[in-house]
Amino acid sequence: MHSFRNDYSEGAHPKVLQALAEANLTQTDGYGLDPFCQEAADLIRRLCRAPSAEVHFLIGGTSVNLVTIEALLQPYEAVIAAATGHVAVHETGAIEATGHKVLTAPAPDGKLTPELVEGVLAAHSSEHMVFPRLVFVSNTTELGTVYTTAELSALRECCRRNGLLLYLDGARLGAAMAAGGPGLPELAALTDAFYIGGTKNGALFGEALVLTVPCPHYRWYMKRRGAMLAKGRLLGIQFKALLEDGLYWELARHANEMARRLRDGIAGLGYEPVVRSETNQQFFVMPEGVVKALGEKGCAFECEAAGDGLMQVRFVTSWATPEGAVAELLELLA
Amino acid sequence: MHSFRNDYSEGAHPKVLQALAEANLTQTDGYGLDPFCQEAADLIRRLCRAPSAEVHFLIGGTSVNLVTIEALLQPYEAVIAAATGHVAVHETGAIEATGHKVLTAPAPDGKLTPELVEGVLAAHSSEHMVFPRLVFVSNTTELGTVYTTAELSALRECCRRNGLLLYLDGARLGAAMAAGGPGLPELAALTDAFYIGGTKNGALFGEALVLTVPCPHYRWYMKRRGAMLAKGRLLGIQFKALLEDGLYWELARHANEMARRLRDGIAGLGYEPVVRSETNQQFFVMPEGVVKALGEKGCAFECEAAGDGLMQVRFVTSWATPEGAVAELLELLA
Amino acid sequence: MHSFRNDYSEGAHPKVLQALAEANLTQTDGYGLDPFCQEAADLIRRLCRAPSAEVHFLIGGTSVNLVTIEALLQPYEAVIAAATGHVAVHETGAIEATGHKVLTAPAPDGKLTPELVEGVLAAHSSEHMVFPRLVFVSNTTELGTVYTTAELSALRECCRRNGLLLYLDGARLGAAMAAGGPGLPELAALTDAFYIGGTKNGALFGEALVLTVPCPHYRWYMKRRGAMLAKGRLLGIQFKALLEDGLYWELARHANEMARRLRDGIAGLGYEPVVRSETNQQFFVMPEGVVKALGEKGCAFECEAAGDGLMQVRFVTSWATPEGAVAELLELLA
Amino acid sequence: MHSFRNDYSEGAHPKVLQALAEANLTQTDGYGLDPFCQEAADLIRRLCRAPSAEVHFLIGGTSVNLVTIEALLQPYEAVIAAATGHVAVHETGAIEATGHKVLTAPAPDGKLTPELVEGVLAAHSSEHMVFPRLVFVSNTTELGTVYTTAELSALRECCRRNGLLLYLDGARLGAAMAAGGPGLPELAALTDAFYIGGTKNGALFGEALVLTVPCPHYRWYMKRRGAMLAKGRLLGIQFKALLEDGLYWELARHANEMARRLRDGIAGLGYEPVVRSETNQQFFVMPEGVVKALGEKGCAFECEAAGDGLMQVRFVTSWATPEGAVAELLELLA
Repeated sequence: MHSFRNDYSEGAHPKVLQALAEANLTQTDGYGLDPFCQEAADLIRRLCRAPSAEVHFLIGGTSVNLVTIEALLQPYEAVIAAATGHVAVHETGAIEATGHKVLTAPAPDGKLTPELVEGVLAAHSSEHMVFPRLVFVSNTTELGTVYTTAELSALRECCRRNGLLLYLDGARLGAAMAAGGPGLPELAALTDAFYIGGTKNGALFGEALVLTVPCPHYRWYMKRRGAMLAKGRLLGIQFKALLEDGLYWELARHANEMARRLRDGIAGLGYEPVVRSETNQQFFVMPEGVVKALGEKGCAFECEAAGDGLMQVRFVTSWATPEGAVAELLELLA
Repeated sequence: MHSFRNDYSEGAHPKVLQALAEANLTQTDGYGLDPFCQEAADLIRRLCRAPSAEVHFLIGGTSVNLVTIEALLQPYEAVIAAATGHVAVHETGAIEATGHKVLTAPAPDGKLTPELVEGVLAAHSSEHMVFPRLVFVSNTTELGTVYTTAELSALRECCRRNGLLLYLDGARLGAAMAAGGPGLPELAALTDAFYIGGTKNGALFGEALVLTVPCPHYRWYMKRRGAMLAKGRLLGIQFKALLEDGLYWELARHANEMARRLRDGIAGLGYEPVVRSETNQQFFVMPEGVVKALGEKGCAFECEAAGDGLMQVRFVTSWATPEGAVAELLELLA
Repeated sequence: MHSFRNDYSEGAHPKVLQALAEANLTQTDGYGLDPFCQEAADLIRRLCRAPSAEVHFLIGGTSVNLVTIEALLQPYEAVIAAATGHVAVHETGAIEATGHKVLTAPAPDGKLTPELVEGVLAAHSSEHMVFPRLVFVSNTTELGTVYTTAELSALRECCRRNGLLLYLDGARLGAAMAAGGPGLPELAALTDAFYIGGTKNGALFGEALVLTVPCPHYRWYMKRRGAMLAKGRLLGIQFKALLEDGLYWELARHANEMARRLRDGIAGLGYEPVVRSETNQQFFVMPEGVVKALGEKGCAFECEAAGDGLMQVRFVTSWATPEGAVAELLELLA
Repeated sequence: MHSFRNDYSEGAHPKVLQALAEANLTQTDGYGLDPFCQEAADLIRRLCRAPSAEVHFLIGGTSVNLVTIEALLQPYEAVIAAATGHVAVHETGAIEATGHKVLTAPAPDGKLTPELVEGVLAAHSSEHMVFPRLVFVSNTTELGTVYTTAELSALRECCRRNGLLLYLDGARLGAAMAAGGPGLPELAALTDAFYIGGTKNGALFGEALVLTVPCPHYRWYMKRRGAMLAKGRLLGIQFKALLEDGLYWELARHANEMARRLRDGIAGLGYEPVVRSETNQQFFVMPEGVVKALGEKGCAFECEAAGDGLMQVRFVTSWATPEGAVAELLELLA
């Protein structure tokens, strides 16, 4: 039975795999200094309408987050994130391991606002405290919600007023864009850095970082944290395949569509979503008995205790989720 | 024209790519907790005759070196390496970035000896100095030379006497084993940790770490440094393909054989090798004019100034080096 | 006019200064390996009834906190502190600078409880999160409140159940002990490590760390963070003077007594304390106009905006606060 | 019998102690934001003829070295030091603990030269290596030798050519200046940062850092490493006492004079100095038997095995060394 545990349960979309196979025996220089990466970076700059942006390819989300935060901050500077932010919770202290504190603000829907950011600033005003310097947001958020262009613009304005950098984690950027969130040109205009997540949307692995703020020694930071792939070309090849004909957006639309069917079906059975999500992660609260029974029937998903005999359940769809799998899950639940 | 610049200029050996394609749509858990990684780890334990060894799969050499050194050492402890050691020179301070000093000893052939190690120990005897704790060796070394089983045993005995850990970087372990160096069972018996390098011997990417010393929270260290791949299965699939039918050794033998032909051919033209190498890296000193001419004819390799109008040149072969390419290079040189 | 800004506005108690002057020209070894430190450490072990405890002398609170946390934790392990905890807020990210995350729990009176600790544990259950390992408490807390022996025992029991270390920051330990908090033998029995704060209770500077958990290389950690004083004897001399005839407790009792007079006087004028404090820090909420007027009359204290035209004011007394100064402040306020 | 083990065996010069006693009960703000520090900083700027220099007071040499190097470098940048440099050998990896590699060049007399520096640069030319950025020198060096103004100027010029910062560790700056080395105005003109060492020349403790390169958040770096003393005034008071009437130079001249008598006396007995030193550290090679006998007669000094039945012995004098002690030592040796 199909697993809804996450969006990295399979390999790559067949077109990506094919591109890797076609380039396989071509010799290139290592470490991302190859024509494939060059072409993919040029393509990304064009899609972002940001001809002077720097583009770097990294292997995974934690890696790109930690390297970029380290590269953009001075040691005494800190990150501001939602309390649910990936860097705050789910990276085993990777940011602190580079010496930076992650300050958090409570955000029930996973989204920071100018008010939340300025509340953190107000509480950090002396040399006996860290210096807040970079606002970390994810699109989609860790709860599947989406920052709109207006919301991101408001954050950008808040950052400008307060001398802050704005960084956007795009592990699920495809899903966010396919659900009406800001597109690549908006992201390049509104953030200092963001990444286009490949791992969760069709690639074997890989994230493409777009830096609009200057960071001339970024590659030193990459190498120093073990984040520079010897055969860097693998990343360029994959991103070219994903981005050049719109495949990236097509895959994300499919994932979102599967998620919406799932959501509407589950809601139709009387369950309440935790937050309203238009993207490929759907959170519901369900009785333990229901969750257990679902698991016993072979359905795979993540869940955690929510008190009072309830559990919070997460269903994740992806480019690889078949329509039939959604129907099957809904049948089981019914 | 074929490039001799390094052994990571191509993608993967076709059998490895095929294994990835076959498993592509099978769903598994992420982060290396999948059946492919489990099978590959079991296979490695069998090949090492080390049923209780821990096996972890990481993405690249710098990554596995920095995570493992951090996991095995206390913060005040230091590494001992040859002055040419990869962790000492070519990782942009990745080990220091985890807070550990790398102490070096001069080793013209790239190989540490008990005498060199004990010289470092003798110079570090107080709480005002770092505490040497882990001996780092590479097989093959960065110069292409090979530690014999006897040499590694002597180092092991030295480590035991002095309370040191012994770690072996196997970025080019295939080449070392194919040239008569210690095999997997010897390595598992003689080191506390070593890795089987995939990137430079047939994989797209990936290194398999074998830990014979207990390290129960190793995965925390991986995650914290961004070194835990979401689709960890990619590593398990590749190592299974490389190791299950002897492909790994076959590829290394080919690379070494190509290198030996190259070496003997170049030596036959009157050039002196820098050190005697039986493996896939060959270093020669040549006049600048010769080197320049070679480059202009389209031959790719690494070189650096060696003074007096001379250059030190490195030619690297791999599983992908065609016999004809060696002949062509020799012809050009002649 | 006397300042109530903090408890480190003056030099040392005259007896401490005299002890330094008397020992001034005696030659000793450096780095704390001298008879003065030896005697002070022995005295502390006797007062703690902990003959096998290790005692180390450090220069200031941030320094002893960061060195000890680094020495007791593995890199992936984290601290649990109250949201108001000094390590969480007021050390400019010093703990994160050693790579460790500080997890916090909201504690309106500044005190952690087993429930708060276990709430943090429950939320940190996977290798994708840091591993909570050390509970950080301060006595007195940052709000002037005091952990009773019963409360500390309950935390200890909670730590034992959950495999956690318990560390107590004693920057104001004198005030806590003088207000009925656990004494040295209780602290040595109930914590894995705690320090006796000198800076804020009579010394020029200095904190005495008592380690009941083994930490054989603690001095390496000290030196590595620049926390080993060349003339370490200065710390031994001061602690001997403070502790050998009960001076330390006498000074703390005076500070607390001055604070209580101040508190009762201010309460008598109709102001509400923020929390009930029996120790040398007193927090009140007052109208901005009152606070401003007080400042203009030359009274020194710390304050921060509390919204609605109010300010939160902190008055701190010390061994050096004259009785007359309290009366003078109350008169000004009246 | 007087100890020649080091120059931090006693407390402070009596005038320094008296200044501390006189200011003892004056109340001031903490953390160095007090009038004493302000006055001492102004005095230092005047003595340096550097009205816009920043002056910070820190507690000890390792502390000022690690905080300043961290404050001046980006994470991927490295230090260049003599192989005997304090940061390279005797700080338990304190620099590496901040993530920076220390690159070394062999310098038999403890002094770097432009040639040595440029040799290190030539070997570090790619993003796979650390980026050398700061030249670390000590005056006096760890061997007691002294950089002349001409030598320092040559290094400065080399740094300018190569985009490097120049930092001078002045733990024994008094001895260097008293022996003809560059004075404060020269140091302020020729370095980006240097410190005036108090601990080894009359203070209880303390080093005064002079920054001529901008570093606006230096105090954040201090606090974050536990290097900001609560009663920062203690440092200002001491440096004012040492510097305002030339006491600092007077003490250093005495130390050097005692050392020269010792040196000439020992040389007169036929022993060879290891290097020619005009300052308060004197290194000699002597037979083990002689060294042992000297120790048994109660003479204290540092020594280490030098092979062939010989030992390298270090005698250190200070402001507190009585003339009679030198005579006594020479008598014992004779």
